[in-house]
Amino acid sequence: MMSITIPSPADFHVHLRQGSISELITPHVRKGGFDLAYVMPNLKPPVTSTEQALAYKADLERIDPNVEYLMTLYLSPELTPDEIRKAKKAGLVGVKSYPRGVTTNSDGGIESYETYYPIFEAMQEVDMVLNLHGEVPSDANANIHVLNAENSFLPHLFKIHEAFPSLRIVLEHATTRAAIEAVKKCGPTVACTITAHHLALIVDDWAGQSWNFCKPVAKYPDDRQALRNVVKEGHPRFFLGSDSAPHPPHAKSTSTPMHACAAGVYTSPILLPLVAHLLESFGALDKLEGFVSKNGRAFYKKPLDSQHQGRIVTLRKTQVGKLVDEKYVLGSESLVPFWAGKEINWEIAE
Amino acid sequence: MMSITIPSPADFHVHLRQGSISELITPHVRKGGFDLAYVMPNLKPPVTSTEQALAYKADLERIDPNVEYLMTLYLSPELTPDEIRKAKKAGLVGVKSYPRGVTTNSDGGIESYETYYPIFEAMQEVDMVLNLHGEVPSDANANIHVLNAENSFLPHLFKIHEAFPSLRIVLEHATTRAAIEAVKKCGPTVACTITAHHLALIVDDWAGQSWNFCKPVAKYPDDRQALRNVVKEGHPRFFLGSDSAPHPPHAKSTSTPMHACAAGVYTSPILLPLVAHLLESFGALDKLEGFVSKNGRAFYKKPLDSQHQGRIVTLRKTQVGKLVDEKYVLGSESLVPFWAGKEINWEIAE
Repeated sequence: MMSITIPSPADFHVHLRQGSISELITPHVRKGGFDLAYVMPNLKPPVTSTEQALAYKADLERIDPNVEYLMTLYLSPELTPDEIRKAKKAGLVGVKSYPRGVTTNSDGGIESYETYYPIFEAMQEVDMVLNLHGEVPSDANANIHVLNAENSFLPHLFKIHEAFPSLRIVLEHATTRAAIEAVKKCGPTVACTITAHHLALIVDDWAGQSWNFCKPVAKYPDDRQALRNVVKEGHPRFFLGSDSAPHPPHAKSTSTPMHACAAGVYTSPILLPLVAHLLESFGALDKLEGFVSKNGRAFYKKPLDSQHQGRIVTLRKTQVGKLVDEKYVLGSESLVPFWAGKEINWEIAE
Repeated sequence: MMSITIPSPADFHVHLRQGSISELITPHVRKGGFDLAYVMPNLKPPVTSTEQALAYKADLERIDPNVEYLMTLYLSPELTPDEIRKAKKAGLVGVKSYPRGVTTNSDGGIESYETYYPIFEAMQEVDMVLNLHGEVPSDANANIHVLNAENSFLPHLFKIHEAFPSLRIVLEHATTRAAIEAVKKCGPTVACTITAHHLALIVDDWAGQSWNFCKPVAKYPDDRQALRNVVKEGHPRFFLGSDSAPHPPHAKSTSTPMHACAAGVYTSPILLPLVAHLLESFGALDKLEGFVSKNGRAFYKKPLDSQHQGRIVTLRKTQVGKLVDEKYVLGSESLVPFWAGKEINWEIAE
């Protein structure tokens, strides 16, 4: 029997929502094999203050106290350098920038990041991490669309990195060869998360198939190959951030002429077996530990050592493919995971 | 009041299906303002013989005798030069090649067209039209996907045109700048249809929005601009082929993790007002008559003259936008058109 043990897997990008759906999904972090969750702040309303973030963290710990939650703030005009210092003292780890923020008060987006430079300065000073959703808004007049929105963002990454060379930056959920190369070109303060589903999908997979639709959209086969290659290479600044994002089944399955489907793929409950399955499929299984634990922990300064060992998770190769659950239910909430009904060749041994 | 009269509009690419759905949609050709329908042969089973085509034509004429139906055969290995000659004598007009056919008995697709050269030779001889669905199959290993499948097909177009310079060829439902330029480069025997919806949509519009999903998929803003430009230019070898393709609402609206939505956009019942609306939006209203009647009729040798006048259709600009119907129903069949619930500024005056 083939098995692999991974010390304390960490998911460096996950949406844990709030309210009843949070009760269903928060335990899925651990169910999916993970010990640490880097938690996105895009709640309603967004998490823009230290108090909110701490209250949110307390909520998550109540639901499942066995996971370490690293908390983030939502980059917005209300944020101040003082709030950044306060956040750092309270143990918050990062600030997330969403595309909407890119264009507030600007046409092209480039200039608008400069309005946040006092925030970035404070973040650099106290050593908080900037998490970038690296897409510019679509603009038909400029021929910018969902497939080149990430490439068009990369000049912003370079510019911020140049202005704040000590600021730790993570380009989130990279989907393109250009993004991989851009991150590689940057210094050691710039890293990159890759989702499980972007290691599996290309544009053909979400054409007419809303369950595979997410943002950034999966790109071309050559882009997927570049993602797979950088994982296979074991590059230390690339690591897993699942971007696991739950939506109610009807919002995923059904569009009307007036309403599109929700963007997002839900991978949390099957995450570690799925990642093992995918890495094995392109010959990178030996890089699993680096990709899901060591690399991200090193960048985020959460290494495993004598103080912190975490859970040792054992993955076992299944004799016959194991079917992914069709649905997860709690009360009136239900969720359909990525690859529902498909086979995965790995399972968590417990 | 602003109005336009168009002599005998012609839709040079339409799917009229069979059975009960055909009863609902065939009258929509005329409802949408059209006098002539160039009918696709992809029924179940496909129309591969003259007898089948004539029986199908009789069916359509029974449903609505006021439309002229130009009939086509499905290019397949069973087709023979003799059948081509027979088809021509019986009044059939064209032969349609689908991507599936491209790859039968071949890996890359290029060689496979050569197996059809005896057919093309006969078609050239008797002056039948070859209608090409211009996409190669996706192939991740060759980085071919839904967005470059049309560009990757263009070498086939050039090759067939070179081998059969007198064979009339139509590149169907072009979606890219490269395709427009390729057709322009060819001689006068090569023409191109453009759909209404590809004048409206880009990739962002079908991302997560299955109602706008069709094949070929809508491409980038720059590609849409190239389609609009060639219409605005009034190029005589470019004309309307709606590719109007009905699917049951549930097949359009709903995907499951195992099944994607159906590809196709249904425009027939609103076609002429929609095309007028779109052409007006990019300043090409003065090219409407050429695009929906003269250009295609000239290429297909169905010109309007003293023998054939057809219906004169009057389009009237509405004072307030007219809402597109939410649904069309006949018995147990129902259909939701493109732009359901949206406003169109033109209507047919009758």
